[in-house]
Amino acid sequence: MLDQSASASANRRVFRSKVDGLRPTYGFEDVSLAPGTDTIEPADVELGQEFCGIPLGIPILASAMDAVVDPRFAGAIAALGGLAILNLEGVQTRYDDPDEILGRIAAAAEGDVHDLLAGAYAAPIREALIARRLDEIHAAGSRAAVSASARHLASGYDPLSLEDFTRFMPIPVAVGNTTNSEAAFALMEQGAAAVFVGVGPGAACTTREVLGIGIPQVTAISDVAAARDAYEAETGRYVPVVADGGMRRGGELAKALAAGADVLMLGSPLARAEEAPGGGMNWGMAAPSPTLPRGTRIKVGTVGTLERILLGPAHVTDGSENLIGALRQSMAALGARTIRDMQRVEMVYAPSVATEGKSWQRSR
Amino acid sequence: MLDQSASASANRRVFRSKVDGLRPTYGFEDVSLAPGTDTIEPADVELGQEFCGIPLGIPILASAMDAVVDPRFAGAIAALGGLAILNLEGVQTRYDDPDEILGRIAAAAEGDVHDLLAGAYAAPIREALIARRLDEIHAAGSRAAVSASARHLASGYDPLSLEDFTRFMPIPVAVGNTTNSEAAFALMEQGAAAVFVGVGPGAACTTREVLGIGIPQVTAISDVAAARDAYEAETGRYVPVVADGGMRRGGELAKALAAGADVLMLGSPLARAEEAPGGGMNWGMAAPSPTLPRGTRIKVGTVGTLERILLGPAHVTDGSENLIGALRQSMAALGARTIRDMQRVEMVYAPSVATEGKSWQRSR
Amino acid sequence: MLDQSASASANRRVFRSKVDGLRPTYGFEDVSLAPGTDTIEPADVELGQEFCGIPLGIPILASAMDAVVDPRFAGAIAALGGLAILNLEGVQTRYDDPDEILGRIAAAAEGDVHDLLAGAYAAPIREALIARRLDEIHAAGSRAAVSASARHLASGYDPLSLEDFTRFMPIPVAVGNTTNSEAAFALMEQGAAAVFVGVGPGAACTTREVLGIGIPQVTAISDVAAARDAYEAETGRYVPVVADGGMRRGGELAKALAAGADVLMLGSPLARAEEAPGGGMNWGMAAPSPTLPRGTRIKVGTVGTLERILLGPAHVTDGSENLIGALRQSMAALGARTIRDMQRVEMVYAPSVATEGKSWQRSR
Amino acid sequence: MLDQSASASANRRVFRSKVDGLRPTYGFEDVSLAPGTDTIEPADVELGQEFCGIPLGIPILASAMDAVVDPRFAGAIAALGGLAILNLEGVQTRYDDPDEILGRIAAAAEGDVHDLLAGAYAAPIREALIARRLDEIHAAGSRAAVSASARHLASGYDPLSLEDFTRFMPIPVAVGNTTNSEAAFALMEQGAAAVFVGVGPGAACTTREVLGIGIPQVTAISDVAAARDAYEAETGRYVPVVADGGMRRGGELAKALAAGADVLMLGSPLARAEEAPGGGMNWGMAAPSPTLPRGTRIKVGTVGTLERILLGPAHVTDGSENLIGALRQSMAALGARTIRDMQRVEMVYAPSVATEGKSWQRSR
Repeated sequence: MLDQSASASANRRVFRSKVDGLRPTYGFEDVSLAPGTDTIEPADVELGQEFCGIPLGIPILASAMDAVVDPRFAGAIAALGGLAILNLEGVQTRYDDPDEILGRIAAAAEGDVHDLLAGAYAAPIREALIARRLDEIHAAGSRAAVSASARHLASGYDPLSLEDFTRFMPIPVAVGNTTNSEAAFALMEQGAAAVFVGVGPGAACTTREVLGIGIPQVTAISDVAAARDAYEAETGRYVPVVADGGMRRGGELAKALAAGADVLMLGSPLARAEEAPGGGMNWGMAAPSPTLPRGTRIKVGTVGTLERILLGPAHVTDGSENLIGALRQSMAALGARTIRDMQRVEMVYAPSVATEGKSWQRSR
Repeated sequence: MLDQSASASANRRVFRSKVDGLRPTYGFEDVSLAPGTDTIEPADVELGQEFCGIPLGIPILASAMDAVVDPRFAGAIAALGGLAILNLEGVQTRYDDPDEILGRIAAAAEGDVHDLLAGAYAAPIREALIARRLDEIHAAGSRAAVSASARHLASGYDPLSLEDFTRFMPIPVAVGNTTNSEAAFALMEQGAAAVFVGVGPGAACTTREVLGIGIPQVTAISDVAAARDAYEAETGRYVPVVADGGMRRGGELAKALAAGADVLMLGSPLARAEEAPGGGMNWGMAAPSPTLPRGTRIKVGTVGTLERILLGPAHVTDGSENLIGALRQSMAALGARTIRDMQRVEMVYAPSVATEGKSWQRSR
Repeated sequence: MLDQSASASANRRVFRSKVDGLRPTYGFEDVSLAPGTDTIEPADVELGQEFCGIPLGIPILASAMDAVVDPRFAGAIAALGGLAILNLEGVQTRYDDPDEILGRIAAAAEGDVHDLLAGAYAAPIREALIARRLDEIHAAGSRAAVSASARHLASGYDPLSLEDFTRFMPIPVAVGNTTNSEAAFALMEQGAAAVFVGVGPGAACTTREVLGIGIPQVTAISDVAAARDAYEAETGRYVPVVADGGMRRGGELAKALAAGADVLMLGSPLARAEEAPGGGMNWGMAAPSPTLPRGTRIKVGTVGTLERILLGPAHVTDGSENLIGALRQSMAALGARTIRDMQRVEMVYAPSVATEGKSWQRSR
Repeated sequence: MLDQSASASANRRVFRSKVDGLRPTYGFEDVSLAPGTDTIEPADVELGQEFCGIPLGIPILASAMDAVVDPRFAGAIAALGGLAILNLEGVQTRYDDPDEILGRIAAAAEGDVHDLLAGAYAAPIREALIARRLDEIHAAGSRAAVSASARHLASGYDPLSLEDFTRFMPIPVAVGNTTNSEAAFALMEQGAAAVFVGVGPGAACTTREVLGIGIPQVTAISDVAAARDAYEAETGRYVPVVADGGMRRGGELAKALAAGADVLMLGSPLARAEEAPGGGMNWGMAAPSPTLPRGTRIKVGTVGTLERILLGPAHVTDGSENLIGALRQSMAALGARTIRDMQRVEMVYAPSVATEGKSWQRSR
């Protein structure tokens, strides 16, 4: 090392480092819900919700992922009170017979998945198939809800503004993936009918490793909910907040509502249903960037019917089945009759609840 | 992504996010007890305590779990100065010969446990068996103490208030599972003779994963103890606080008292006794919700007599045997002559004590 | 223990313990980048940078490690817009045929590596070989940049001051390894053309275990960047900050820029290239201290061409390939058109982003 | 749950919970040393120290453990500048031929260790053997330093005060195991010649699990050093602080000094020497409580001569060999010429330094 004593005077300066005062953020495993003084009966919990004008019996959306939603699945979840979102840029709108390519993806060897996915999503999207799938969804007994990336709306350096788009579209437009108050407020001002919260929390997404971007879901939901409440106070319009990704067990669904969510969108937990088209696998979109894939295939297994996953009875004790029963029980124990009540229960920072007292070997 | 620059004005709003200022909470592994300036002799430590009018030689209750307490076990722990709580809704009050069903649960294959437990607890509770078990407990030389869920006290939407119930009952009523000051204070106002602290900390309980609810035990005990002290200051009545679950080794018993507990209730650590009916297993209650089980079977092993587990001599060095000897030694090293003294020793946040300097391979 | 009650008066003193108010510091895994309200197109991101007067197409330097840089590698990275730094004290300047010794190090059995490295770096450095390698680098199409330790500049107790050295040298002198504001400011005052940040973060370095010294990279970069900004404000001269080590995936490159770096220096990630001389291994310098080695050999594997590692297309989804594509995508998603913009994006403390929702088994 | 609404008034009370404002404490893995602006040459570092009137060439004591110190080992470490402490209550003072019982302990099967240790320490301590061992230590070329528990000084409820004891003893008395400022100050007032810091940090001690007691070493050392400085300011007498246990690699030795220690006492790291009597094992004292053992046998291995462990050359890069070389190098890099300088270097909270950038597979 070189002699640096000549510059001892530098010691008297005050330097402002960016890391001083970094804001702490929280994920599902960091927090816990605190019982209060009152409880109610589970039967008295009201889980009905409205999403973009569609009444829901349960506050659950199925993610627009190819391994989760096809028209048959949309019918199955609608029958249980939820709503599926169809991916307009997935295999359903690229292939006459999507089940064939889905089967090949699910069955592919580890080493072949990447190339197979890249090839599968290179096939063109066909407008006729979009119409056909919407018809099939309606025929299956569900309202149709679809998802498309902003890529389709922008052209070169002159993207369509969201404000123009929402005014132009004949149907409500829900927008994502937001994680902060300012952006969410702006989307609401521009007419968003609902706001999706989450950048990369899902099990099949590697955005956080690849781009370094991401806000843990509890903080993201809480921040966007703060924008929703501020926007409602200013305008009187209530824009539902959708927690999108990162939830797996009943406890995480409960925490998402307690953080401020109105509706919960699930991917991998529903890919475990017999009705899911992924055959026990789930994967993120290999497109849009073939040179920088951020979606990975994960094995989730097929554990039972969608009804059992959502409404029980659970055959395991880890909270991954009977998700709605767990939510109902959690809200009852916390004295929350409605989702609005649930958004007000006490939440604490409690990273140790995950392991405390759990050192013996468990059966399932 | 869409153009959002039109809403730059949103940046000037102040949003109040629920996660800002989350309260930190602490479990047993997060804290450590700090030696002071004085020590006393272990022989001078006084561990006697009173619980609901019953004098205890040691401040230990056995949890109302089927794998822990039966009449024979109640006699064994009474002989050592503790007290067992019988589960009024378990196999003891449903079967003439509970040992047969207990043996089958302990011996069941992993995959069969869930269904076996669900079936076992579907048999009806018989009042005659309740009376018989109480007689057996008295015959074994123990006072009788029992546990029942609030379910038995409520009917439809008009539950009996705790205040009416405690006035009506001819015996003291201890209540749980509480984790916060306000609820604990309310229970004391309504006549609770003791308050149990803990939601889901035990090894055989999955409430935290399934419902997202739970407060780490050190914080929960400390909060309820604060209510106890405030209630005593207002009314002169001292309501003992029972730490219920999550303790496994001597160190955790010591920390529970230091956090403010008066009495310690143990489940899995006592299920390891030869006298325990669980045959080396322990399990949470599969009831009350057959559609959402939150109790799991864990293997705890059978390691020796109850006397050895509580009073030693220990044959291992990890603190899981001679729990009372460890407690006595800990209190002596901290200069605490009584449990009341122990509640005042210094506690620090010290997550690293669990691993510091422990990187070599240990013998037992 | 002995009686200490005679000194109870000591309790009234106030003791000032060094650990009270310790400054928290942050590494790459502790932080995450927060999306704002604006995004731009990846194609609009500008990654050009200047380093010591050399224009770079991408802000990437290759570390002066023997397993990473030789003349051929320097040509390969120059063709992609980056710059390699040759280690003047490594095998390239000690051996006529460095490939032979490199091959032996890469192929050595675990138990033989230490002695082999110690022997390899005992051979004398030859000035003629320095000149030959510089010629080869120029012939390969790259500007020449070299690294030497301060050891060569100092003699006994009268080291050449950096100020004299930078004035004396005909070329810009970049200096490291700095981790704090004061030292960095002093180096800039003494004429440093760039400052390297990092003590021991790299995968092949054990300085932190051996010496107990080290500042996590995000804090170190942020602190040195604060000095750069203060120095520029006082003098008008802008001294680039080089993040040196600890980055492995696109996310970490993005975080290093967001923490304040201008240029990123990579070792192990580039040792994975087919062009790298290390043959799938990387190692730190066994010299300078043969009695206290702090460099270790690690297996990094050979995964593809340097072009694929830097510019893609990626064949994995974990962010370790197409590092520049990831950086471009990250900056676009954060609305950062230039590296200067990227240094101003919001960063949060978010240790949980690494694991949230990631509990299923992944394919690559 | 029972109706608790009658007590809503309890919500208005303020409860003071013990856990609010818990003091954070730090272990070696939590902190890191921060480079400053100056460095010096390793050759200029001065490591000499005085302990209880004995001049030390290096600030290292060998722990009073049977697997570490016997007369031969005392001679070996004295030759290198350190000092061994003989355990007056171990096998050396109970057996004519301690090597025989030491060999049996080292060779015992896992399951037999507990009983073997309990039996070994049941043999009586013989005064004649104490005298013989002290002679042997002198003959081996070392000053004699011994350790005994307070048990030998106390009788019933009337223990000899430390003040009387230090006045009575013809030699300086060092006292432990202290972890806080008040207790340390009191010991100094009573005449302690040095203070040992540490409750349970060592690898062979399970006090923390068994009793729940312990302060992480960095905080404990820092607190006791604060007492030393306050005591020196009041009285002019400087009482050395000995860090006792929990250090394993060069980095931990450096951190102990930086936290405020004057001398470092090592157990397991020295039990790895060929000269150590433990034969590759180390164990804590099974006595004094046969009913509550807190010492465990750990396998440390035999890695080389004591000289190599202390002075190198190191054959591994993890910092566990050439401990003094590492300390000298660390102090030089931090610009600390003396141990007193080292006590003033900057320390930060940096839990992430242990893992940052270390995800590839290492060779040793």
